[in-house]
Amino acid sequence: MKKTALIMAGGRGERFWPKSRKSLPKQFLSLTDDGKTMIQLTVERISSLVEMEDIYISTNKDYKNLVLEQLPGIPEENILCEPVGRNTAPCIGLGAVHIAKKYEDAVMMVLPSDHLIKYNKMFVQTLREGCEIAEKGPNLVTIGITPDYPETGYGYIKFNPDASDGHAYQVDCFVEKPDLAKAKEYLATEEYLWNSGMFLWKVSTILSNIRMHLPDLHSGLMSIQKAIGTQEQELVLEKEFAGFSSVSIDYGIMEKAENIFILPGTFGWDDVGSWLAVGRIKKTNEAGNVVDGNIITINSKNNIIQGGGKLIATIGIQDLIIVDTEDATLICEKNSAGDIKKVLENLKICNRDEYI
Amino acid sequence: MKKTALIMAGGRGERFWPKSRKSLPKQFLSLTDDGKTMIQLTVERISSLVEMEDIYISTNKDYKNLVLEQLPGIPEENILCEPVGRNTAPCIGLGAVHIAKKYEDAVMMVLPSDHLIKYNKMFVQTLREGCEIAEKGPNLVTIGITPDYPETGYGYIKFNPDASDGHAYQVDCFVEKPDLAKAKEYLATEEYLWNSGMFLWKVSTILSNIRMHLPDLHSGLMSIQKAIGTQEQELVLEKEFAGFSSVSIDYGIMEKAENIFILPGTFGWDDVGSWLAVGRIKKTNEAGNVVDGNIITINSKNNIIQGGGKLIATIGIQDLIIVDTEDATLICEKNSAGDIKKVLENLKICNRDEYI
Repeated sequence: MKKTALIMAGGRGERFWPKSRKSLPKQFLSLTDDGKTMIQLTVERISSLVEMEDIYISTNKDYKNLVLEQLPGIPEENILCEPVGRNTAPCIGLGAVHIAKKYEDAVMMVLPSDHLIKYNKMFVQTLREGCEIAEKGPNLVTIGITPDYPETGYGYIKFNPDASDGHAYQVDCFVEKPDLAKAKEYLATEEYLWNSGMFLWKVSTILSNIRMHLPDLHSGLMSIQKAIGTQEQELVLEKEFAGFSSVSIDYGIMEKAENIFILPGTFGWDDVGSWLAVGRIKKTNEAGNVVDGNIITINSKNNIIQGGGKLIATIGIQDLIIVDTEDATLICEKNSAGDIKKVLENLKICNRDEYI
Repeated sequence: MKKTALIMAGGRGERFWPKSRKSLPKQFLSLTDDGKTMIQLTVERISSLVEMEDIYISTNKDYKNLVLEQLPGIPEENILCEPVGRNTAPCIGLGAVHIAKKYEDAVMMVLPSDHLIKYNKMFVQTLREGCEIAEKGPNLVTIGITPDYPETGYGYIKFNPDASDGHAYQVDCFVEKPDLAKAKEYLATEEYLWNSGMFLWKVSTILSNIRMHLPDLHSGLMSIQKAIGTQEQELVLEKEFAGFSSVSIDYGIMEKAENIFILPGTFGWDDVGSWLAVGRIKKTNEAGNVVDGNIITINSKNNIIQGGGKLIATIGIQDLIIVDTEDATLICEKNSAGDIKKVLENLKICNRDEYI
């Protein structure tokens, strides 16, 4: 069966400020040593599995030009611009009806655009397995990540270790971000994986699940599908999206559906959630510094320093994140990376939109 | 008697990098909240005592335009450019012969251009007293600062507490920068003051002392004096300076001369030796940060942050010096301020002169 992909690239992440901006979110940044952006890596990773004409990018119209620039191989009509953000269920539904318009049925993989994968071949192998499970029945396949530690920032998926099909397990339930005690409990049971936000299913399977669990969304999607390729396409899309409820695929479908399987991913996954991730991803020098740009470090240890052309000299500092851009510089203690949002709140309050 | 002043402004201080550069040393920077540069403050401070036409600036030709720009009131012929740096004795001698050419005799005060004074009226009062002592005999008057702590970076002057004339004491000797144990001893005796590098004397007094203790310098200076105002002025200056030994006024004269007096200064003196001084001089906010420019601080304490137009956001940091300029940014732990020279050494080794 035809393999297709929907890459979700609508996010407006703030955690990589000042490099990321409202006008340039994380998925369009290069955070790795190879100079490629996150979304370029995402497409490259599946290029042996899915043809370019079958890769769809869902984003919003502000980012359409970024997608065109960074992914010149993707046909323009495959860039699906949501008129307003309505969370992942409408986003995935939109992708599904576009694919359904093109193919009678197809396997559809849904992938975030801003995660990193270390072992790409192994990742593709997992996707292949997921496609097989998706093809052979009305199955909803997710990819789970074996937790390294009791993270409280991710959703978890409970699986049944005694009910496996090949590498995949039957899913018991999806659970929201836990508190630390709960997260520790989950790890102790050995029956929970991190929810990576990656899914595989047939287009027919996800659409029938949407019809069953989110009937209003389904009927709107049908109108959209009908209008694709007509003069009303834009108009219908805007009208229907405006009426959609904001609902996640996890809450709207996965927590209610049956026939859910999870494939534990062993390919080295990183959601690149903050500047700290850059310390894990990029090469570290002998002093423990991760350094990019025009940098002199004197007696400085374990810092993440991301500059550009401008000279940055550091003396006697440690455990700092330093990010320099054309118009703004961040100097942040590593444990305070989560407080970048406070800087952005401050900028919003002061109407300094040029920095956001 | 006519009062004149020689302000020494040839220094190439590195300790305020990246704001200070070879082409823009500390005396030409503004480090105070009033926006005036150090040399402007120096001139302003004595303007009630000395007429502008009697203020001489010794510097080198690279800085002549800076002096002209920053001190438009000083006559151009009063800007004395040393062809090469030969330490303070030739520098002061050069000033002395220019003044001697103009006036039969005059009081000459010698002042550094890069120190700060808190109580300006009190300072002027001290200078007045110094002038009186200088006028009434062949006296060499210095201004001493009562030590706050056993500083090892300054020279000291030993005085005789039982031999005073007004506020002034007779000087026993000049001593070089001590080690910490020695500095502590000095303080315990209560007979040592810091050498501020400020002097007052009659031109005739200093020239006769130079004739006695540095006869080669004296004969060169006499040739220079003779050539002032002639077509050979530049040529003679260059030839004589090239032949001068590099010698400080302290070592060449003060350690050997007689009739030396010291006036303890009570006017609040700061030699502004490093970025740490800015933390003492400028207003500190409630979080202990000294902040200039376009700055957002989140959970940040006791930092010195000197920016410009560019936004600098700090999160969770403390005790750092952050200095941002057009082409270079310094991020330095406060206790490591002394290592700025290592950055400059590194830049020199790498031939990156544009940053020096």
